[in-house]
Amino acid sequence: MSDKIRIGVLGATSYTGAELVRILAFHPNATITYVSSQSHAQERLSSIFPALSGINDDVLISPQDAQIRGDVDCVFSCLPHAVSASLILPVIERGIKVIDLSADFRLKNPDIYKAWYKTEHPAPKLLEKAVFGLCEHYRKEIANASIIANPGCYVTSVLLPLLPLYKNGASIEWIIADSKSGVSGAGRTLKLNTMFAEANENFSAYSIGHAHRHTPEIEQELGFAAGKPVTITFSPHLLPVNRGILSTIYIKTGLSAEKCAEIVKNFYTGEPFVRVREASDLPTVASVAHTNYCDITFTDGKDGRPVIAVSALDNLVKGASGQAIQNMNIMFGLTETTGLMR
Amino acid sequence: MSDKIRIGVLGATSYTGAELVRILAFHPNATITYVSSQSHAQERLSSIFPALSGINDDVLISPQDAQIRGDVDCVFSCLPHAVSASLILPVIERGIKVIDLSADFRLKNPDIYKAWYKTEHPAPKLLEKAVFGLCEHYRKEIANASIIANPGCYVTSVLLPLLPLYKNGASIEWIIADSKSGVSGAGRTLKLNTMFAEANENFSAYSIGHAHRHTPEIEQELGFAAGKPVTITFSPHLLPVNRGILSTIYIKTGLSAEKCAEIVKNFYTGEPFVRVREASDLPTVASVAHTNYCDITFTDGKDGRPVIAVSALDNLVKGASGQAIQNMNIMFGLTETTGLMR
Amino acid sequence: MSDKIRIGVLGATSYTGAELVRILAFHPNATITYVSSQSHAQERLSSIFPALSGINDDVLISPQDAQIRGDVDCVFSCLPHAVSASLILPVIERGIKVIDLSADFRLKNPDIYKAWYKTEHPAPKLLEKAVFGLCEHYRKEIANASIIANPGCYVTSVLLPLLPLYKNGASIEWIIADSKSGVSGAGRTLKLNTMFAEANENFSAYSIGHAHRHTPEIEQELGFAAGKPVTITFSPHLLPVNRGILSTIYIKTGLSAEKCAEIVKNFYTGEPFVRVREASDLPTVASVAHTNYCDITFTDGKDGRPVIAVSALDNLVKGASGQAIQNMNIMFGLTETTGLMR
Amino acid sequence: MSDKIRIGVLGATSYTGAELVRILAFHPNATITYVSSQSHAQERLSSIFPALSGINDDVLISPQDAQIRGDVDCVFSCLPHAVSASLILPVIERGIKVIDLSADFRLKNPDIYKAWYKTEHPAPKLLEKAVFGLCEHYRKEIANASIIANPGCYVTSVLLPLLPLYKNGASIEWIIADSKSGVSGAGRTLKLNTMFAEANENFSAYSIGHAHRHTPEIEQELGFAAGKPVTITFSPHLLPVNRGILSTIYIKTGLSAEKCAEIVKNFYTGEPFVRVREASDLPTVASVAHTNYCDITFTDGKDGRPVIAVSALDNLVKGASGQAIQNMNIMFGLTETTGLMR
Repeated sequence: MSDKIRIGVLGATSYTGAELVRILAFHPNATITYVSSQSHAQERLSSIFPALSGINDDVLISPQDAQIRGDVDCVFSCLPHAVSASLILPVIERGIKVIDLSADFRLKNPDIYKAWYKTEHPAPKLLEKAVFGLCEHYRKEIANASIIANPGCYVTSVLLPLLPLYKNGASIEWIIADSKSGVSGAGRTLKLNTMFAEANENFSAYSIGHAHRHTPEIEQELGFAAGKPVTITFSPHLLPVNRGILSTIYIKTGLSAEKCAEIVKNFYTGEPFVRVREASDLPTVASVAHTNYCDITFTDGKDGRPVIAVSALDNLVKGASGQAIQNMNIMFGLTETTGLMR
Repeated sequence: MSDKIRIGVLGATSYTGAELVRILAFHPNATITYVSSQSHAQERLSSIFPALSGINDDVLISPQDAQIRGDVDCVFSCLPHAVSASLILPVIERGIKVIDLSADFRLKNPDIYKAWYKTEHPAPKLLEKAVFGLCEHYRKEIANASIIANPGCYVTSVLLPLLPLYKNGASIEWIIADSKSGVSGAGRTLKLNTMFAEANENFSAYSIGHAHRHTPEIEQELGFAAGKPVTITFSPHLLPVNRGILSTIYIKTGLSAEKCAEIVKNFYTGEPFVRVREASDLPTVASVAHTNYCDITFTDGKDGRPVIAVSALDNLVKGASGQAIQNMNIMFGLTETTGLMR
Repeated sequence: MSDKIRIGVLGATSYTGAELVRILAFHPNATITYVSSQSHAQERLSSIFPALSGINDDVLISPQDAQIRGDVDCVFSCLPHAVSASLILPVIERGIKVIDLSADFRLKNPDIYKAWYKTEHPAPKLLEKAVFGLCEHYRKEIANASIIANPGCYVTSVLLPLLPLYKNGASIEWIIADSKSGVSGAGRTLKLNTMFAEANENFSAYSIGHAHRHTPEIEQELGFAAGKPVTITFSPHLLPVNRGILSTIYIKTGLSAEKCAEIVKNFYTGEPFVRVREASDLPTVASVAHTNYCDITFTDGKDGRPVIAVSALDNLVKGASGQAIQNMNIMFGLTETTGLMR
Repeated sequence: MSDKIRIGVLGATSYTGAELVRILAFHPNATITYVSSQSHAQERLSSIFPALSGINDDVLISPQDAQIRGDVDCVFSCLPHAVSASLILPVIERGIKVIDLSADFRLKNPDIYKAWYKTEHPAPKLLEKAVFGLCEHYRKEIANASIIANPGCYVTSVLLPLLPLYKNGASIEWIIADSKSGVSGAGRTLKLNTMFAEANENFSAYSIGHAHRHTPEIEQELGFAAGKPVTITFSPHLLPVNRGILSTIYIKTGLSAEKCAEIVKNFYTGEPFVRVREASDLPTVASVAHTNYCDITFTDGKDGRPVIAVSALDNLVKGASGQAIQNMNIMFGLTETTGLMR
């Protein structure tokens, strides 16, 4: 076992935490050293998630105990924002690699962080060191990083189709991303709107009108690729499925859908987890559920109407824990697909 | 019973047909004289829909037998397009009022009909007589009509928030309607993509890129209101719920969301079935399911981003059978809400 | 308005409370005088349930304020057990008729109540006065009652098929009721197991092995009908739908399924809300959803295997609020179906 | 690649076929040589199941072409009963090992087959050679078998908790299995009752009263274990989830639930795919979905009521394709969990 990457998981009782454990349990080059949880410390992880019985029956340790552990090579944090940055500081200081699934290291500008998250950034000095973990676009930086800011789920679904266009110099007048996410995206905290009898047989928009926290993250990365500020209209919706995000993205550009598809397909040639499909073969949530794939198409709007990109991914896998493990594979020099093809 | 409106229902074994029967069964001023079906003639309607046992146990008659019946005052047709127009011709000729839930009398221009439905219009001469049955906008014409073209479900969800703006002279640069519909909207015909194990835990776009037949219907009515041609980007999606449509509509206009809401709220003052809500109180599919309501909000996009209208309705009620009965109430001089408040 | 029954609703923000309000809003002989809630006092009911906008926009009053109101003829309590009995005591003392949807007045023996609900009964003296509100079996007593103990949802689904057999003197060796309920049956309180991402795509048994509180209620009523103690095996399950209960009931008896069906069908002749169906036409949850019906069949087990009764009803309607209103109709001398046919 | 097991899949476009391909694609010791389908021959499997894009893009060959292929070591048949036996006869004659997921080789007595499947058995001579592929109970026979009759999904969920009791000599008076299955169990054929708008928000019993074809299969295997004929009451239900079976099994026996659990737990000691759980930790469909596990508990009925076993498995995995691969692993001398832990 000594040559396996030794893993710690903070916030293991969240949905992303459980998904991480589920994938890592069968990863040939990783071993879970500890799982941690504030609210469930001293309980078995498999008593919280019976599905993990026989897969991981470890007793959860407290974050305080986790922070002082030196016997790990990589720590994944599935903690809430603000809490995450402050709890992983001591881990980073021990020289342990950190993959943070919270929003804490995604925004480069601490003022923008404060404006959207209503709190001072807990570790502004680390922002420069952190690498935005969108694997297909920051692979080289990820390989050498000590802290990864794992991208937001919606963010990944919007950036993957758009970034290659900007990087190719496409002129884009405006963008609207109408996104729909399964309920696990809202986390495991008890809230009325995600109760079964409220969310089932229902569908609704929320945080529309430049109000969702994934918006500045999308605009930052599009801006980096464009070399100038980019604004976007981003509208999230709550979809009555457990997993999956589908984004319908309207792009006002002089390019045809065919040309967009060609640029994006070329960009992702050889990428194991991005499937650029024919326009006749639109992505669906079911086709990517439980996988690390992101599927993408471009459809012509006809007669000057905007081009329509559709992308789909599993919010818990490519939108969170799968991409986090892809980042780990890159950081530790493993084949990028290790443990993720299933 | 003699003073009740005598009703015939063609295509009673469709979802819209069954919903019509369910509502009409408890309508105090209507009585169902016959229910008709091609494929299930001679069977009891309640053997097809056990939920209707004790509510309507009539034996279905064939459309051929229905056509020659003179003992009805109003016929609802839930037949497929093209079939509908040809089967209701003899009914119309008998002077019986007809409310057609198919697409056959919605488009005023038979060439556009042919372009989208790939068939010659079966009764082009009747197109002029037919009134577009969007009750809140054609009430006066409906009162005197002999043929009603009941609007499409998606169409109703897009027109209700937009028409008052155009009628108020608003300057609108472009519109994108990203619409999501429950599976009953696809009808009761056996198709793979609407099988449970395919549609459940799934979500997908379809007929995007100016390909869905409700597009010309929307553009026609917006054009009439604008006094000039209007184009729209309309993207339908299949939502894993039985009932309900939610449309997220992006409107590029100089008006603020607040101003849009004011115009639309004023327009619908006193309307029993349109609820213009606060922006903080976004419509949901569950709030309108099984009712004849359409809920509407307007949200500001901020910093020049488009205004976002959200509308929600039940595709089988306000989007089909409920609105059809609302039309009947208008045509026969009844209080418009009769039988529809439940 | 003066000749309408004036109604107060306690616990109006529960699912059964909202369903009561929804039905009563269109009841021709009733008017809601007040709606009450502890946790949401001073808010509008329609701000909690947007679906009720325009239907009931009353401000919720506190239970303390409700208790002293004399301007009502009938109070429905949708409060939790123990809380309900203590809060409605003053209402009863004012001579106002009470229909209690909690479990507080269902069990005649306060010791059994204590054993199952782990608390002393708050008003044991009233137990004798209270009538068990299973309309088809206690109609005469209900007509003269001042307190109705509205039966449990599971209980109604099990008693309706079985009681006529016992009343007919059938010899029954043993009974197993394997029941499945939609998630609204668990109420609107935040609990992990009824979160969408937990209950969706899931199914589970709970409180099996003589542990569910509806068991003594079923055994009490079967015992009354049998004239001797009856025991039952009752196993509830959580079904991923919003509404509906289906009970599969195994009856070890010398009678054939045909004979059982005949007895039960005869018993319910003329009953508007019980549909005894052919064995070939098994009840389904969808056929009774949103209605006050209970559908029942009997299937032969063959070669000495037990007879299988299947019953289905909507847990919020015939299993709670619909039956409560049916009780009100009986108590106030109205046609029993008033307001309930929709 | 030469040392990998070469696989052919007949009926690859069924749900069990697609699940087989999905699992085998990542099996380290197997390679898919061909996929076959009658109705979709010449199409790509991944055009039928877009989820398989990049995983298996093979062109489907016809069953006729498949039958003459000699370049495979093992053929899985996901064909319908009767069709399966006749199409795999030539494959068996070539000395290729066959794992048949249809019902054709499960019943040892061709008369019982005829009585339940209404057709003469297509290959009665092979019935003796075929081994019933319930891995935990026929491991030794499977290792040497050339034809495996992969057990039915319901069957596996009922036999796994009961067989150890019979093998231990338990005296059991009667058994009732009330089983609930997700919709994928009904296959991919277009049928009205498995359309989304019919099965969603619904729940129903079907084929109750000794009418479901899995009944004789259960009774055969229980009889073999008991050494005498065993009868069972088996009631299947249609559950609105994609995957999963939960069986609630009532066992009239003198043994306590604790004793049953002890016997069964002992029997399955060391078994990788059977988890006998504490009674406080009831199995759920979600805990086993997408895995090869079967979870089992025993609950005491109290005061002479029957013991209640609850079992859960994924109908497409342990109930079909996963168990089929487990059988393959045994037949080819591989570690039994290979490819199945994910």
